[in-house]
Amino acid sequence: MIALSDIYEKIIDLAKRRGFIWPTSECYGSVAGFIDYGPLGSMMKRNIENIWRKFYIIGEGYYEIECPVIGQEEIYVASGHVKGFSDKMCQCPHCNEYLRADHVAEGRGIAGASAMKSEELASVIATLPCPACEEVLGPVEVFSFNLMFHTTIGPGSQRTGYLRPETAQGIFTDFSRLLRFYRDKLPFGTVQIGKSFRNEISPRQGMIRLREFTQAEAEIFVHPGQKKHPRFHRYAGYEMPLFSAKQQMAGADPLVMTMREAVDGGVIANEYVAYYLALTHDLLVRIGVSPDKLRFRQHLPDELAHYAEDCWDAEVFSGRFGWVETVGIADRTDYDLRAHETQSGQRFSVFLPYEVPRRMNRVRVIPDMGALGPRFRGSAKAVADALTACIPGPDGITLTIEGKEVLITPDLYEVREEVVEVPGEEVTPHVIEPSYGIDRMIYGVLEHSYHEEIVDEEERRVLRIPPAVAPIQVAVFPLMNRDGLPEIALEITDALKTRGILAEFDDSGAIGRRYRRQDEVGTPFAITIDYDTKEDRTVTIRDRDSMRQVRADRGRIPDLVRSLIDQTVSFSEL
Amino acid sequence: MIALSDIYEKIIDLAKRRGFIWPTSECYGSVAGFIDYGPLGSMMKRNIENIWRKFYIIGEGYYEIECPVIGQEEIYVASGHVKGFSDKMCQCPHCNEYLRADHVAEGRGIAGASAMKSEELASVIATLPCPACEEVLGPVEVFSFNLMFHTTIGPGSQRTGYLRPETAQGIFTDFSRLLRFYRDKLPFGTVQIGKSFRNEISPRQGMIRLREFTQAEAEIFVHPGQKKHPRFHRYAGYEMPLFSAKQQMAGADPLVMTMREAVDGGVIANEYVAYYLALTHDLLVRIGVSPDKLRFRQHLPDELAHYAEDCWDAEVFSGRFGWVETVGIADRTDYDLRAHETQSGQRFSVFLPYEVPRRMNRVRVIPDMGALGPRFRGSAKAVADALTACIPGPDGITLTIEGKEVLITPDLYEVREEVVEVPGEEVTPHVIEPSYGIDRMIYGVLEHSYHEEIVDEEERRVLRIPPAVAPIQVAVFPLMNRDGLPEIALEITDALKTRGILAEFDDSGAIGRRYRRQDEVGTPFAITIDYDTKEDRTVTIRDRDSMRQVRADRGRIPDLVRSLIDQTVSFSEL
Repeated sequence: MIALSDIYEKIIDLAKRRGFIWPTSECYGSVAGFIDYGPLGSMMKRNIENIWRKFYIIGEGYYEIECPVIGQEEIYVASGHVKGFSDKMCQCPHCNEYLRADHVAEGRGIAGASAMKSEELASVIATLPCPACEEVLGPVEVFSFNLMFHTTIGPGSQRTGYLRPETAQGIFTDFSRLLRFYRDKLPFGTVQIGKSFRNEISPRQGMIRLREFTQAEAEIFVHPGQKKHPRFHRYAGYEMPLFSAKQQMAGADPLVMTMREAVDGGVIANEYVAYYLALTHDLLVRIGVSPDKLRFRQHLPDELAHYAEDCWDAEVFSGRFGWVETVGIADRTDYDLRAHETQSGQRFSVFLPYEVPRRMNRVRVIPDMGALGPRFRGSAKAVADALTACIPGPDGITLTIEGKEVLITPDLYEVREEVVEVPGEEVTPHVIEPSYGIDRMIYGVLEHSYHEEIVDEEERRVLRIPPAVAPIQVAVFPLMNRDGLPEIALEITDALKTRGILAEFDDSGAIGRRYRRQDEVGTPFAITIDYDTKEDRTVTIRDRDSMRQVRADRGRIPDLVRSLIDQTVSFSEL
Repeated sequence: MIALSDIYEKIIDLAKRRGFIWPTSECYGSVAGFIDYGPLGSMMKRNIENIWRKFYIIGEGYYEIECPVIGQEEIYVASGHVKGFSDKMCQCPHCNEYLRADHVAEGRGIAGASAMKSEELASVIATLPCPACEEVLGPVEVFSFNLMFHTTIGPGSQRTGYLRPETAQGIFTDFSRLLRFYRDKLPFGTVQIGKSFRNEISPRQGMIRLREFTQAEAEIFVHPGQKKHPRFHRYAGYEMPLFSAKQQMAGADPLVMTMREAVDGGVIANEYVAYYLALTHDLLVRIGVSPDKLRFRQHLPDELAHYAEDCWDAEVFSGRFGWVETVGIADRTDYDLRAHETQSGQRFSVFLPYEVPRRMNRVRVIPDMGALGPRFRGSAKAVADALTACIPGPDGITLTIEGKEVLITPDLYEVREEVVEVPGEEVTPHVIEPSYGIDRMIYGVLEHSYHEEIVDEEERRVLRIPPAVAPIQVAVFPLMNRDGLPEIALEITDALKTRGILAEFDDSGAIGRRYRRQDEVGTPFAITIDYDTKEDRTVTIRDRDSMRQVRADRGRIPDLVRSLIDQTVSFSEL
């Protein structure tokens, strides 16, 4: 067993040494909150992104779009980020370090710091030591710091631009184009995978708190009255632990239940949210997150955004960081679309025709121009227009004319009740949003798959990552670096690559050392070419997890490895 | 035939209407230089990126890395971008529009404007009209505008950051990590695909001149004395038109030759550059660029960067924009690594052991401390150390001691000639860089593949893009929207998707209209399910280009379509 508190150092050491994750621009002293994905990390990242695409693009049928990371100011005024996307900060008067004020308080066990106002927080932290220099802070000013990276588009400070804090807004601003693409029907979904940015005040948590990170987000536009997912049956019986707000407030444990039970019992707001909770559980386990280190936690009433109908975080347990929010799944209602409608003055709704037009009663106000004319003169036309849009009260209709409230009495208009044919309705869709933090997923998979064990009196470090996620899926070794063995190994490597398998040739060092090197980076299978290969055309294939070896005909290798990676065959069946 | 000048409007209209390319955040008035890739454009882009990866990652064996788009200032001081990455601009005194001064001059046929100094350019454009308001500019100030987007990392203007102008620098700054990953051997290559940024002064060329764009770059680190590509034989006989500097200066046409001839004849500097010229030609044609609208133009002596040994642009012809630089292939020598070495003080070289240590003669200077001591007192030790690092001249050795030049005469030291064993050499690799502009490649493919023709007295618009690039690879139509036909069509769609084929179900409108809709977005094949399908289990498969239709067993469809897409079977063979 590895001490949990040590595991982060072990993972980061392995990740640096073997080319998964590197500090960025290390030669200039790297900057906190930025990382490079090295050769193996970048491959693993692409594998995970492609599995994500399999779920959302092929499985759900949602198309992907790609928007710029630089966005103009109006987008983020509408979304609320210009005004509200900030953290409370202060500067240590002793060492001049910038600090996140709520983190200073929370670091000393003070609960609820993130919800405090600036003045309250300032008085709380005045007696606490600076986490950087350990001096007691004393009276400090606490102020809001906007977390968006700011830039200028074009010369002469022409136009303010922000680096997007989430990929979602690009999908919202494209709503009317997307609606036309999906031929004006609901529901439809659109996804985006790409970089997002948060100018963190003082990030100290390695890959968990990044200033530049990769998100994979899906925005699913649904009819507000129709939140039953058309393929709910797929996950209705899916069982998983739910840490509902109710359980949290009662100090109780998460409850294991099916999605059907959770929706019927009112634990999850609707089928859409439940469906994506289950799909997310399915996806995270598929990429290598341990099911026993994964939970779904509902937002408490005071953390739930005012506009959200329901919100859950998929939290992945880390020995170093505790429960880490890795995916968020929310019903954001029509908040975003209405915000952009208000800001832009454009329509962010869809006209949905009824199957057959519906007959509805309507009250119509018909102004009496003969009476309005003398009374309102030049404004008579405007008053008449305003009246037709009103529903009259018993005493008449109150209008605001040139800043003054005026009561228009019933003698100035006539009321008619009519039956009209209504062809359809104008609907502002609700948005269901599953939002994934790809970097945190990668870290979680690395931590959960890392194992140390003693084999033949030596330590074996092994990453037990699923074959579809492994950056190298099969290693090919010539037993010796002569006698034609390397040539055969290279031929087999090429045949594997042609089948789209991530294969790597390695002829360097003793065979045992080569196995260990591959174990450490999670390569699930290794093929060894030896002198028997030249006689009988068989090779050895070795399984990372069981370390078992079997012999197989070299001609069958590409098909066999493909089946092992796709898990249509298991190694124990060979 | 389509008038070439109109083609841009046609492409952009189609691209907007069908979801390839959209103006970004259109609801707020889009910003020049930024585009969104819609659902079909984004799919096409990923297809092209993945074909690029097949060439460079699977084919060449180069690993991909992923660095942040925000970089700290030191990187771009070293690379020269802080000082030199700028355009000359001015502001129109009449309409206040910002203008690229060299473009104003070039737009009026003045040659060589991009090489002029600010003062010269100012005097040239003073008599020219502003391209925006048509007023004669008169005396204006021309100044340099740095094209990097600027931002601040962390609070309190702590640290300047730039959005990267190219992905290459991330690879260079990771050099020592990469070198260890590749086990300290040359050559090795590393690639990166991602966003890069240029804060253009006033971009007016749609998707050709973007402020945020996608690059795919490979940096190949080679021994300066070994520029023979190990797999040169693959492209040695590859024939293509080369527009060398010599041909350009002679006012002559490009010459068609093989890569072997070009290297042997001194047209291309070395095998590495030639290999990637040919590979680039191969790749561009494979994704759908017309070979007759593609040329490779060598940089003229005055446009070649001072450090580059050779540089070629792959230029794609556009009816609207003329020859557009789309890929650049350069031998950048050791310029970048040496620049980072100087800026960072770190080592950017590799120690390469000789196969057997080499015996070499060495001259050694042995200071005579007995004579130096009385003469230099406290500095004697420093003088002695400096002497051992020098090669003596006939009169002695000149050293700079405390700012003064001092001649150390031969009586103060002894010279010994020794034979030493040298185990290897310290080498700063040269860099071969193929750099691709993905957005321009996409535009080129769209323009070259767009065709209009009259079929059955109606106009047919068709994108003849290769099946591997098409955003939808096969469309599946139920002839009628009833009688179980849609169910069969959905089953076939699912079977196709399971095989990793981009399949789309469409049951909307007359069958002829559905074919036209797919032709316009370049879908190469369409399957129709009709009443015979229920009888004999056959379906119709239609070819986009020939519009021919054949019937096939529905069970064979996934394999058949897979073979057609991979081009292992051609439609005419069915």
